[in-house]
Amino acid sequence: MAMDPIRVVLFGLGPIGQRIAHTILGKRGIEIVGAVDIDPEKVGRDLGEILGLDRRLGVTVTDDADALLDKIGADVAVIATTSYVRTVYDQVVKCIEAGLDVVSTSEELAYPWVDEPQLAAEIDGLARQYGVTVLATGINPGYFMDTFPLILTALCREVKRIEAVRAIPTGQRRSSFQRKIGTGMKPEEFKAKLERGEITGHVGFRQSVALTAAALGWTLDEIKEYPPEPVIAEREVKTTYTTVKPGQMLGYNAVAEGIIDGEAVIRYKLVMHAGVEEGYEEYLIEGTPTIKVRMSEMLGDWETAHIAVNMIPRVITAQPGLLTMKDMPLPTAVLGDMRIFIT
Amino acid sequence: MAMDPIRVVLFGLGPIGQRIAHTILGKRGIEIVGAVDIDPEKVGRDLGEILGLDRRLGVTVTDDADALLDKIGADVAVIATTSYVRTVYDQVVKCIEAGLDVVSTSEELAYPWVDEPQLAAEIDGLARQYGVTVLATGINPGYFMDTFPLILTALCREVKRIEAVRAIPTGQRRSSFQRKIGTGMKPEEFKAKLERGEITGHVGFRQSVALTAAALGWTLDEIKEYPPEPVIAEREVKTTYTTVKPGQMLGYNAVAEGIIDGEAVIRYKLVMHAGVEEGYEEYLIEGTPTIKVRMSEMLGDWETAHIAVNMIPRVITAQPGLLTMKDMPLPTAVLGDMRIFIT
Repeated sequence: MAMDPIRVVLFGLGPIGQRIAHTILGKRGIEIVGAVDIDPEKVGRDLGEILGLDRRLGVTVTDDADALLDKIGADVAVIATTSYVRTVYDQVVKCIEAGLDVVSTSEELAYPWVDEPQLAAEIDGLARQYGVTVLATGINPGYFMDTFPLILTALCREVKRIEAVRAIPTGQRRSSFQRKIGTGMKPEEFKAKLERGEITGHVGFRQSVALTAAALGWTLDEIKEYPPEPVIAEREVKTTYTTVKPGQMLGYNAVAEGIIDGEAVIRYKLVMHAGVEEGYEEYLIEGTPTIKVRMSEMLGDWETAHIAVNMIPRVITAQPGLLTMKDMPLPTAVLGDMRIFIT
Repeated sequence: MAMDPIRVVLFGLGPIGQRIAHTILGKRGIEIVGAVDIDPEKVGRDLGEILGLDRRLGVTVTDDADALLDKIGADVAVIATTSYVRTVYDQVVKCIEAGLDVVSTSEELAYPWVDEPQLAAEIDGLARQYGVTVLATGINPGYFMDTFPLILTALCREVKRIEAVRAIPTGQRRSSFQRKIGTGMKPEEFKAKLERGEITGHVGFRQSVALTAAALGWTLDEIKEYPPEPVIAEREVKTTYTTVKPGQMLGYNAVAEGIIDGEAVIRYKLVMHAGVEEGYEEYLIEGTPTIKVRMSEMLGDWETAHIAVNMIPRVITAQPGLLTMKDMPLPTAVLGDMRIFIT
């Protein structure tokens, strides 16, 4: 193609951001032209070094997003910094005002109207004004508990209820993830940390429920998100992060529901603990017809990076505004040149 | 909503067309304003009677599409007449020229570029000229062997190979379907009929393979479609259509492949015979990551009607041209008012 490669600025070089960088580097027709992180350990270093490559990429990590956006002509920002709309807001606005389309892995931004309607309206208005698209995605929210059960309903005339269970054998996941789900903690300690807000449950649960309902035209009376329920080890379990002793937590189960007339028309459950031997996703669409699906488990961090990157060309060609996965064309892998949709 | 209901003209009142009519009648914000069929048994009768309803619908079936389209102001045509682009072409063109968007269940039209590139280009050009959208869909092609495996790849960085198997317990399906797959025939008789073109294998197989490849940016060297391979009864099997004696056919297996460099990068298999006890769809995406999915079986005719109807509001709002499922927004059930996307 004669067209220039898609030029990407990365925000956030944590576990997800680094995987996004690796994924982009494996693609054709796209290049990373800037990288932003606030970690003093990363600022000033070459991105190739941060990623553990044996070559420099000629992209120096900066903590000055304004200066970078001023001098660099980019097409898209991929923002993998924080889970919350409030904290990702300034970065998103900066990118919109610089004329960049935005793909983010911010969980709340996947359907921000549910908890941050005011900020969502502001982002949407700005994006339309500047003619750019903002989309947040990932595997959850973004896929397993919204996009995927939604596409199953395409076969249906009526849908009464949607259930999904995602079971993750957490003992092999990165330490920060295992810590976050209480692995090795006493349940009282975990609950106290939850109450003090030092740890949170699965961010994006409410957003998945709300996005599913919105796509189907369901007006929910309420979204119920139950506190994570500790799963306790009965025998010693070794994980890559710690050794869980009997009485300590292996992780937790968590449930979020979408309620209409007292009935849970949407019920999403996470089974995230080191006692899960084989992970899976299981779906039940109760309706006409009723559909059951079981999918093999994916651990998640890489897949979040993949789907974020696969959406880049679609975000470039989408209509302006703050969109969600229900508004996008069919998501698929982009295997050839990333400029495939751009004519 | 203040807006008028979506006005639909139906072409074809066979098994699929009737199911489409029933599905539309169960929805809000949409109405059937015309019905076309060439069957003298149906022409002149009220649609409600054809559908076995205990009420008249005020829609008289006609075989004169031109006169109908001249006098009726409709938004969308749903065409469920024939499987082939050549034979559905005139109807599609009539509807385009009358300014209607078109949803069809014509199998070849689901990806017409593979076998009818000239007619595809003509339909596409006309649709753009008249500012309308043409889409063919259904469950296969349209979902099980294109849209659905494609959305699984959204999780992937690389895809090496895609496999799908659809197993159907055919003994409970409508007689015309059982006859078409050779149920109760001697294999020699079936093969002779195949050779004489009196029966065909699964129409749309090549289209599913081509659509999958196109969405992923794969350029296939070849699409191989193997002749259906008879499955012979070893003991007597009763079906709703006939009793299959030992030595007679229960149905067949069929395979279509997409080939690159001598390798089948896409392999779709149909297991359609009365010996299948429990149907299923099984998927393997071999790549990074590898994904396995198993879905419970749906018999198919109703689901083709459901997905066709669920795509109506999306076709109304889509860009003009001849589109395929890969170009459409995420397909989902439309449960509330069918005007949901139309603002």
